[in-house]
Amino acid sequence: MNNWHLPGNYQFAGVSCGLYNDPERRDLALLVSQKPASAAGVFTQNCVKAAPVRLCEERLPKDTIRAVVICAGNANACTGEQGMKDALRMAEITAEELDCAPIQVLVCSTGVIGRPLPMNKIETGIRKASQLLGDDAQSLDHAAHAIMTTDTRIKVSTRELTIEGKKYVVTGVAKGAAMIGPNMATMLAFVMTDATVRSEDLQGMVRRCTEQTFNRARVEGHTSTNDTLLFLANGQRSTPLTGPPLAQLEATMTSTCVDLARAIVEDAEGATHLITVEVEGTRDDEEATKIARTVADSALVKTAIFGADPNWGRIVSAAGYAGVPFKEEQMSLWLDDVELYRHGVPLPINLDTVSAHIKKNRSITLRLQFTLGGGRATVWTSDLTYDYVRLNAEYTT
Amino acid sequence: MNNWHLPGNYQFAGVSCGLYNDPERRDLALLVSQKPASAAGVFTQNCVKAAPVRLCEERLPKDTIRAVVICAGNANACTGEQGMKDALRMAEITAEELDCAPIQVLVCSTGVIGRPLPMNKIETGIRKASQLLGDDAQSLDHAAHAIMTTDTRIKVSTRELTIEGKKYVVTGVAKGAAMIGPNMATMLAFVMTDATVRSEDLQGMVRRCTEQTFNRARVEGHTSTNDTLLFLANGQRSTPLTGPPLAQLEATMTSTCVDLARAIVEDAEGATHLITVEVEGTRDDEEATKIARTVADSALVKTAIFGADPNWGRIVSAAGYAGVPFKEEQMSLWLDDVELYRHGVPLPINLDTVSAHIKKNRSITLRLQFTLGGGRATVWTSDLTYDYVRLNAEYTT
Repeated sequence: MNNWHLPGNYQFAGVSCGLYNDPERRDLALLVSQKPASAAGVFTQNCVKAAPVRLCEERLPKDTIRAVVICAGNANACTGEQGMKDALRMAEITAEELDCAPIQVLVCSTGVIGRPLPMNKIETGIRKASQLLGDDAQSLDHAAHAIMTTDTRIKVSTRELTIEGKKYVVTGVAKGAAMIGPNMATMLAFVMTDATVRSEDLQGMVRRCTEQTFNRARVEGHTSTNDTLLFLANGQRSTPLTGPPLAQLEATMTSTCVDLARAIVEDAEGATHLITVEVEGTRDDEEATKIARTVADSALVKTAIFGADPNWGRIVSAAGYAGVPFKEEQMSLWLDDVELYRHGVPLPINLDTVSAHIKKNRSITLRLQFTLGGGRATVWTSDLTYDYVRLNAEYTT
Repeated sequence: MNNWHLPGNYQFAGVSCGLYNDPERRDLALLVSQKPASAAGVFTQNCVKAAPVRLCEERLPKDTIRAVVICAGNANACTGEQGMKDALRMAEITAEELDCAPIQVLVCSTGVIGRPLPMNKIETGIRKASQLLGDDAQSLDHAAHAIMTTDTRIKVSTRELTIEGKKYVVTGVAKGAAMIGPNMATMLAFVMTDATVRSEDLQGMVRRCTEQTFNRARVEGHTSTNDTLLFLANGQRSTPLTGPPLAQLEATMTSTCVDLARAIVEDAEGATHLITVEVEGTRDDEEATKIARTVADSALVKTAIFGADPNWGRIVSAAGYAGVPFKEEQMSLWLDDVELYRHGVPLPINLDTVSAHIKKNRSITLRLQFTLGGGRATVWTSDLTYDYVRLNAEYTT
């Protein structure tokens, strides 16, 4: 926290308003830009979209956003017309406190589906948070805690960069998991910068960045009702970034999102391993992505890693049903530095050594190499464990 | 077993040849037609196909098949050129014993991937089985046992039907699971009838039937290297069945396959529930199938049923990311007779009662009703349990 980079002209707060049984637990966050910010977002592709998601989709992209208000513990999803009224009201209350227009406020929720928001608690929370806004690391830490549901730790990634001699900051904060947890609905991520970017450029950036980062973080592939990624840029220079300088900012924002996406997968419910699936040598990147996702989604691959079993048969056969044509002899496979399978033939390995290696390392890379072309892709997933089943079976709505 | 219907002019055997550590365990089966049979099959769509699968694909459809030889415990997959030589040799040995041409013999294997077949054991097994062929229920029972890997019980379904005043029998035998078990590679099913059918008609039947039955049985969606379904018809009438009588036979063979597919899902590793997902009221059957498969594949739905939790939020949100556009108010949801969700609104339920109902019943139906049209589909899956993780994590190659 002491070495976080904080973007200029942003303030943060995270307070407790009683959405959880634990009255000490922070559950309402404000991210405020003191100057109107460009904002853009991407949202869940689920047909069943929470009210705040629909609100944000309608409002973005826009150049005049002042705040994002977020509550955790209640998703405001499957809540009908009342849900949309409540989301609009959250924006109104926040706007009153910040002395801006309601349409300058974005709203996010995450938590249990199908329950109306307790609006009296929410209102008290927003007014309290508004009084506690700060531009220091501790305020951001409070906000990062206040958006957590079943997360076991906060996810923050910050970076500094220099573009044309001027310093900028990119600060990202997220909550997981990449799954719907025990009825939680689910991923939220916010990336703020003090650079100057047009909102339409920011919209392109957030789309491309999602494809390279959060869309490659797989836990069990269950798309939630609330998934939201927002980019905010509040720089006030008369000439917004374009061309190579803008690309430089995009690269930094993408790196920040990689950090957040990996952190979400690492903190997935019950996970004991972060599994990176790298595919290279396919005809194009799309083929590589298909294979990487199929391997990452295989319950048999995920249980094998949990069991510290370098089970090449499961990995190879998962690649085989990804929908990408290849012959066995066109594929080789590594687990970290150990080659398991070369051009269609399993290699002799020291099973005890490899198994001990998997047990010892929380992060494992599976690399599938094809001889078909120059395509490549990377996807992250977690292992499938007893705790995953326990957390998702024992919880009752 | 006493009430099984056995098709005319077929013989069966199942013997032990030592592919498992337990020398008592049957692991080699013969299914023999005493007269040349029409045969057709469908096979795994995996690019990584076992040698016996490629052999069967090359030989079918054909009108002169005399036998299927099957070994369990070794999949003969990822075994290179030697694997194909061994599969051809299995057909040759069987042909020698039955005094037919090698090309009249089909070959299947299921079990561990990536190990060469111990051909001396296999040869001894085939010769022994040939001596023990019988047309009685006990012989079929031996064959049904000899194709099992991690199955806990045999899967047999038999039916009698009358077409144009003449009685026929349809007899199916299968082994599961619909998953690759601990490195097992995997589903085999054989459906035999004594009706007279042209092999090209049989090929159409087996394709359509697969789409309605085995392709709707989902455990974790991992397509194996060895999946095989074979239809055999050995009737000798000069005029093969066509038109409505043939459709009648197809309906019975489909029902037999439904029995086998459900039995495979019920006996999936670690399963405590058979979950039937019924979708109706979509624009067409394809949409219904997409939604049913997505719900059935959701790890969160599967853990919820294991946890006896009528978690409508997970079911509804899984439907929402199936790729079929709909609005929440166009969907309602039942768990058996309990309506959980009506036109986009969750209904109040007695949670204890519904939870007790799930605990008590091994078979649970989730029914999603849409208001979009007349499409419908049914899919079967199993729940996701601690034992699933244990069986798939603790096994080491």
